[in-house]
Amino acid sequence: MKEYKLALVGATGVVGREARIVLEEMKLPISKYAFFASSKSAGTKIEFMGKEYEVQELKEDSFDEGFDFAVFSAGGETSKKFSPITASKGVIVVDNSSAFRMDKDVPLVVPEVNPDDIAKNHGIIANPNCSTIQAVVPLKVLDDRYKIKRIIYSTYQAVSGAGKKGIEDLENGIDEYSNGVKYELHKFAHPIFNNCLPDIDIAMESGYTKEEEKMINETRKILGKPNLPVTATCVRVPVFNSHSESINVEFEKEFDLDELIEALKNSEGIIVENNLEKHEYPLATNSTGHNEVYVGRIRRDFSVKNGLNFWCVADNIRKGAATNALQIVKYMIENN
Amino acid sequence: MKEYKLALVGATGVVGREARIVLEEMKLPISKYAFFASSKSAGTKIEFMGKEYEVQELKEDSFDEGFDFAVFSAGGETSKKFSPITASKGVIVVDNSSAFRMDKDVPLVVPEVNPDDIAKNHGIIANPNCSTIQAVVPLKVLDDRYKIKRIIYSTYQAVSGAGKKGIEDLENGIDEYSNGVKYELHKFAHPIFNNCLPDIDIAMESGYTKEEEKMINETRKILGKPNLPVTATCVRVPVFNSHSESINVEFEKEFDLDELIEALKNSEGIIVENNLEKHEYPLATNSTGHNEVYVGRIRRDFSVKNGLNFWCVADNIRKGAATNALQIVKYMIENN
Repeated sequence: MKEYKLALVGATGVVGREARIVLEEMKLPISKYAFFASSKSAGTKIEFMGKEYEVQELKEDSFDEGFDFAVFSAGGETSKKFSPITASKGVIVVDNSSAFRMDKDVPLVVPEVNPDDIAKNHGIIANPNCSTIQAVVPLKVLDDRYKIKRIIYSTYQAVSGAGKKGIEDLENGIDEYSNGVKYELHKFAHPIFNNCLPDIDIAMESGYTKEEEKMINETRKILGKPNLPVTATCVRVPVFNSHSESINVEFEKEFDLDELIEALKNSEGIIVENNLEKHEYPLATNSTGHNEVYVGRIRRDFSVKNGLNFWCVADNIRKGAATNALQIVKYMIENN
Repeated sequence: MKEYKLALVGATGVVGREARIVLEEMKLPISKYAFFASSKSAGTKIEFMGKEYEVQELKEDSFDEGFDFAVFSAGGETSKKFSPITASKGVIVVDNSSAFRMDKDVPLVVPEVNPDDIAKNHGIIANPNCSTIQAVVPLKVLDDRYKIKRIIYSTYQAVSGAGKKGIEDLENGIDEYSNGVKYELHKFAHPIFNNCLPDIDIAMESGYTKEEEKMINETRKILGKPNLPVTATCVRVPVFNSHSESINVEFEKEFDLDELIEALKNSEGIIVENNLEKHEYPLATNSTGHNEVYVGRIRRDFSVKNGLNFWCVADNIRKGAATNALQIVKYMIENN
């Protein structure tokens, strides 16, 4: 059996750290690992699979030694500069940034949804935005059966999606509330503690945020429906990890609610928790540390023909980033 | 000028306490106040307008002395029992519970929206659900102009809406996180700290929560559109006070976005904060302590003809409860 060589770029960030844990769990046939970061973090020693590694500074010749895969989680600027260089050396790049997602030559992949798009890559495969990944896993199941006509997203997104500084802003807000320790915000425009901020990523000319435009455009691309009517309101909430989403969908076809729920239950990567009376529904704290997408509060929307509401939660650092990227790698290894 | 007599029932609860503050600010022509609560809280001394009052136990003969208004914020069971008795003695009851809201003989009133319904009362006027009140204030302005066709609500509701025990569950969760102090939940089915719970009030047969059904049914009644297509997902978030809402609306008529925003700006009880680039949008912490409904993130929903998304925040204990009830009293005094 062939063994592979894999590099993690951005190995010390929030996603990179989780990717190392997911890699240990996945037990892929990989014989060599390397870990890269910016010059700031280079030299950091990390423990991985019982061995010590030193994090290296990412440079143009970093991949000259020969790698099969490089998973980039180091932000858009690093990806823009280094992904094409890396790909030009025959390395498959799985890129967590938004830099290449809407590039028509770059597949945007969620393995449960559009694995066949992987084969269309020219060296770079984009990992979608966290809030999109978890939504399209159940939506694809429903689209295959009932043909989606329109989607309305409202999100409840955790601070881990904003990286270490986002997490610190919430921690510091809690610390001020509890212990009176004054602090300054380092990531958000307003205190995230005790607030919901409808303001993720930058403001676009459309009046939407970039996060909202990502959800709209990436949903269309991944589902292969370039003109699908989709709208989104993306909101940061004072939760450390795992995004929650209120999703409203309208279908072309009629559905039987029990059959629809059964279809979700029988789908890969989905866990249905759907008993409101027993207070069973997806929760951020319960999905944290897991790779699946949790779906619940599944009910008919009586305000429109063939309408549905549901609640969808997933670990945004796992399924929304590290896990999904490594599932792409796994798929390529298994289907080589 | 006539002077009135007003009683607050449930004077020591979260809403009752805020109602006392709002009353001090409003300076209504009221010559006599009385404060009632359950036997548990009876005897409590409270400071009000520079005087000390003793909270009395609510009894069947409490209103025999003659009052003009009684504002009830003591829960559904107390209202069911005492509101009809009180009204039978010629006292106008403004009831904060859900007990009479959908009763066809009881007007359900938001003074900016349907003040004329007040005159139809038979002694009881219902104060709507907090999440509904703040939504219908801007929606009425838009319905008058563009005729609403469908509404989709996703809410981000504060724990103060669940009363003292709800607030304590969040406080205790924070304290455990910060200082390791173990606690037991007293209100919510799951920890609200670090979670979003799509589970407000009880589960209904429809698959919706009672809170969601309230939003749907009360919106229709207040707007005077009994068949309006409305759907809702109501979610508790780890915020102490003020509800936020992501509202998606579809109109019959076309609209000009600038004119629509201008109409909201010029409407009573609404403050527009709508500059995403400058990070200006409604926030829970900023609206707390204020009586207005804050509206922002106002943008066209491109996924449907004549669609709109906006973000709406208000102090759920003020405009969502105490303020709205007392605005009804004020309206009746001024239009007597």
